Amino acid sequence: MRCTSTPSGEPSFVDKQSAARGYAVAAGKTVLQRKLLPALDFMLHDWLKVSDLTSRQRFEEHSRETFDELMSAASDVAADRFEPAYRISDEQEPYAVDGGVVTPQETHLAFQAYRDLGILAASHDADFGGMQLPRTVDLATRVIFGASGHNLAPFLLTDANASLLLEHGTEMQKRVFAVPELEFRWTGTMCLSESQAGSSLADITTVARGDGEDYATDSLGPRYRLTGNKMWISAAEHDLTENIIHLVLAKIVREDGTVDPSTKGISLFIVPKVLVDEDSRLLERNDVTLVSLNHKLGHHGTPNTALAFGDGTHTPRGAGGAIGYLVGEAGDGLRQMFHMMNAARIEIGLAAASLGMAGYATALDYAKDRRQGRPRTQGAKNPSRPQVPIIEHADVKRMLLAQKAYAEGGTALALYAARLLDDQMTGTPAQAERASMLLDILTPVVKSWPSEWCLESNSLAIQVLGGAGYTRDWPVEMYWRDQRLNMIHEGTHGIQGLDLLGRKVRVDGGAHLDALGLEIRSTVGAAERAGMKAEAAALARAWDQLLDATERAWATEDPSEALANATPYLQGFGHVVAAWIHLDLAVAAAGSDHSEAPGRTAAMKYFFAYELPRIGAWFDVAARREPLCRDVLPEHL
Amino acid sequence: MRCTSTPSGEPSFVDKQSAARGYAVAAGKTVLQRKLLPALDFMLHDWLKVSDLTSRQRFEEHSRETFDELMSAASDVAADRFEPAYRISDEQEPYAVDGGVVTPQETHLAFQAYRDLGILAASHDADFGGMQLPRTVDLATRVIFGASGHNLAPFLLTDANASLLLEHGTEMQKRVFAVPELEFRWTGTMCLSESQAGSSLADITTVARGDGEDYATDSLGPRYRLTGNKMWISAAEHDLTENIIHLVLAKIVREDGTVDPSTKGISLFIVPKVLVDEDSRLLERNDVTLVSLNHKLGHHGTPNTALAFGDGTHTPRGAGGAIGYLVGEAGDGLRQMFHMMNAARIEIGLAAASLGMAGYATALDYAKDRRQGRPRTQGAKNPSRPQVPIIEHADVKRMLLAQKAYAEGGTALALYAARLLDDQMTGTPAQAERASMLLDILTPVVKSWPSEWCLESNSLAIQVLGGAGYTRDWPVEMYWRDQRLNMIHEGTHGIQGLDLLGRKVRVDGGAHLDALGLEIRSTVGAAERAGMKAEAAALARAWDQLLDATERAWATEDPSEALANATPYLQGFGHVVAAWIHLDLAVAAAGSDHSEAPGRTAAMKYFFAYELPRIGAWFDVAARREPLCRDVLPEHL
Repeated sequence: MRCTSTPSGEPSFVDKQSAARGYAVAAGKTVLQRKLLPALDFMLHDWLKVSDLTSRQRFEEHSRETFDELMSAASDVAADRFEPAYRISDEQEPYAVDGGVVTPQETHLAFQAYRDLGILAASHDADFGGMQLPRTVDLATRVIFGASGHNLAPFLLTDANASLLLEHGTEMQKRVFAVPELEFRWTGTMCLSESQAGSSLADITTVARGDGEDYATDSLGPRYRLTGNKMWISAAEHDLTENIIHLVLAKIVREDGTVDPSTKGISLFIVPKVLVDEDSRLLERNDVTLVSLNHKLGHHGTPNTALAFGDGTHTPRGAGGAIGYLVGEAGDGLRQMFHMMNAARIEIGLAAASLGMAGYATALDYAKDRRQGRPRTQGAKNPSRPQVPIIEHADVKRMLLAQKAYAEGGTALALYAARLLDDQMTGTPAQAERASMLLDILTPVVKSWPSEWCLESNSLAIQVLGGAGYTRDWPVEMYWRDQRLNMIHEGTHGIQGLDLLGRKVRVDGGAHLDALGLEIRSTVGAAERAGMKAEAAALARAWDQLLDATERAWATEDPSEALANATPYLQGFGHVVAAWIHLDLAVAAAGSDHSEAPGRTAAMKYFFAYELPRIGAWFDVAARREPLCRDVLPEHL
Repeated sequence: MRCTSTPSGEPSFVDKQSAARGYAVAAGKTVLQRKLLPALDFMLHDWLKVSDLTSRQRFEEHSRETFDELMSAASDVAADRFEPAYRISDEQEPYAVDGGVVTPQETHLAFQAYRDLGILAASHDADFGGMQLPRTVDLATRVIFGASGHNLAPFLLTDANASLLLEHGTEMQKRVFAVPELEFRWTGTMCLSESQAGSSLADITTVARGDGEDYATDSLGPRYRLTGNKMWISAAEHDLTENIIHLVLAKIVREDGTVDPSTKGISLFIVPKVLVDEDSRLLERNDVTLVSLNHKLGHHGTPNTALAFGDGTHTPRGAGGAIGYLVGEAGDGLRQMFHMMNAARIEIGLAAASLGMAGYATALDYAKDRRQGRPRTQGAKNPSRPQVPIIEHADVKRMLLAQKAYAEGGTALALYAARLLDDQMTGTPAQAERASMLLDILTPVVKSWPSEWCLESNSLAIQVLGGAGYTRDWPVEMYWRDQRLNMIHEGTHGIQGLDLLGRKVRVDGGAHLDALGLEIRSTVGAAERAGMKAEAAALARAWDQLLDATERAWATEDPSEALANATPYLQGFGHVVAAWIHLDLAVAAAGSDHSEAPGRTAAMKYFFAYELPRIGAWFDVAARREPLCRDVLPEHL
């Protein structure tokens, strides 16, 4: 069974620790795992029917049992190694010593346990050491790790980096650079931003020059020397692995000494921290230097750095400049990076949702345990009666239902996107085309909606705990701090709005929007048949509102008018999508005796009663092209 | 001129540092002060007409000039001592040594500078060393200090403590305990919560027993011995002053050894850290012991403690139990404390707004300075053009306008409440009655609205700064962390909602709600006359929605139905009140050539376009008595 073997053929953590255990054992380990596993189980099986994927050739060696066993094993490792390490990684921030970065021992243990589990490459080809697991199951395991120890291991970046190389690299580049990443012997980074060019990549100033006469014929790829500085690079230095593979955007200097000022001038390079030979053996240190660590509000588990390329700290092969190998064609860097970026944006949404789940599980457990006051229905003013668990209070239940709707809704949304990734890769041509269109339009929502609302969810978790939630004795404040990054990195909220309203809803005359409309109408029909007529009608109305806002925003075909309210539009769009996901989940729950089913219905009802009615305020400003914000004079602010 | 003299008659900081300076000098000191002073100037003078108060006898020695001079002096001290100390107090958390608590040197300097300014007692009677300054101006200075160095000095608690004693204490208690507090030689605390009784005060277990035969005849007040533990006590230990005066809720043990189980059994006691004689001279240590410090998400400037009373660490006068002096009548403790609590809730709203102002000033300055990208209107895709300051982007302006509306709206709301406090104290009987009714109904809003929306405001400040905002290189993440407490302490958000919908709107058959309606209709009329017809109509409609929701929530007269959605109702109510405040400010701006006037109009228009339309989603669930949250089964969460 593939998923129980590491790429090296050694028995993996699954064999050693969990083969004899049932799902229920892992699920009983901690409060968090007890909440996560059943919720994911419902989504994977009762809703997304991932077992159906095993009829596809790529997944034919898998079965529901292998999926469940992997989830169970992941939950074990997360409970044993990630949960205890999370707060430690927050309190013991990474620090720089001699140009390197030190992380706590517990982070090493978590990283090793994850590596031993052998699932970083879970979704990749067997030829590259992968398990050929569906992305849906693969990303479900990341919900577990993301909730249990956020960012203790740089999965996302390393996986994304390797995936990009597998997509765009030469066979040699795949073997030399990507495979050690998939084995998690090395980790990877994405080096895009520069301090003068955050979201505006045309303005990067890192440059590349051919390295010597034979630069074009290096077996690892055309060889360049890079010089420049990069900012906000996560996991660019750490002490977890022997090497780190940087994927760096830079502009190739033309013969006349200039560079193309536009994004067309951007190319992508593999820049290893330590140079390697054709067998991935370590050679000498490349000229990549840690300039400084960023000291952050949260996400202490992952060092975030400013890096210098070619500043002369090292002189690999006796010369200046960091050695980098071109990936694909010159000038194709941004396109390549965006291919990866879309997958990364889905994972950011997933990570945001996983933190939402962590906060919700904590708040729910606290609310069942903590006694305080007496509700109105039980003689609020009679102090001779015992205090009740605060979960008896209507307002506490409201805060818990909201968290459930945000966190579980966000998780479901991200897993739905993962299921589309599977269809895109292994579905019939029709399925793949549908999946591609849906992914294109949903990606800004999958990235932004959980980032925004699971922040609110984490805030509500603090509120449920009250004064205790404000202390560092409980993890909810840490979740909230860590969560705050998700609206910023991998494209800010504002950029997601511009992407959605400025591009995605307009592609092919609105074909992708129509594809989403088909799905939503399908859910509306199923909900009607399942007896949820009021909610079905509400979703249909909401979709019409969305279409109307889209059309009216673009009525003048003037981007500066249409896009002045792109963020409120994104918020409205996100809530409509979330309502659809909740209703679709409730349809699945209506036909299920799963323990999660009643909760799915409750969360759906909450969302339609309290959340969906918010969309008017967002869509209305977009629809009438409200010019106030665009036109206000800076001196009046 | 009273406001330039300290109680001791020495020249104050105002004399020494600022007498020769104009307003503009102070206003030019820092980015923050440049933003704060003009905004407050407009609110105090162009809107609230505080100079009119000088015609009242209590304020007759004041003038616009003394008000402005005090604001200027406060701003100087805040810029010189508070702004530099704020981040230091965050990074160097207070720590416990030998039962005491150590704070950073910079905190001491800030505290001393504030004390030297002599304005803690600003609003109090000259007889007790005060300046008899209007509360409106007094609280405006606290906006400056709250924004510049949140919680570096425990103003609120000490002032509230002293105010309670001036209201309910004996002449001896006022002189011995309150006056040294007003001089800020000592500080004060409020000891309500216990770990088993957070918001449910009937359940406190701290008890008091008469101290010896002569307990009833002590000149400082009936003398008791207290035993019990208190939790969440702010500034209960620090190294800033020689003594700390605790006001402690406890139950007096009856002759049969029992206590009244209800809140009627609660009395209030003065429990000094160090016992004092009738001349406030320090005697021996009382038995009040630091149990532990709470390690918090933010608010590091103020130590927060668990305290033990009478645990035997000290044996004052050779016996066990902490010595405390009864305030007023036995059993009257909760009423006395709530008198103080209402004032404290207004100050929490003010503090929340001040943090909003701090974040807004930072984000605005950053947005004017930071260059990134090119807006659509200026050829977004042409990289040969220079990047523009991000304040040129519509979405950045939207985020800044939102912050302006939340932070300045919250500040105005809290200052409006302060102006009502002045009317309550010094107005005609009719003015005082109107003010009391308005304060009664507005207090939950003044406390909750800035706490909720200035948290959003601080989050938007982070968002404007992007990755930089997520680092500790900028203060916005600190503001956000500090802000998070405000929805929790001095009555959680949920409790404010119950107070508003459960009590305040129902008092005297809705008389207080009607009083607010009169004010709102008055603003509607003024706005119509000033040409703001659309907004006037929108506010009138919103008020009708609010009344309708109130009536329908109580249609069945069943509290468990009416109050199941008290928090959404509070949110809707808050947004209507904020819309009214913004429109009233805009009416004042329409007739003003103040530099702030155009911004007041812009913020109002933003609020009516983007914020007021949200109220439907909140009021609707309250109006239809949506039972979902109340009725959901805990096992389905």
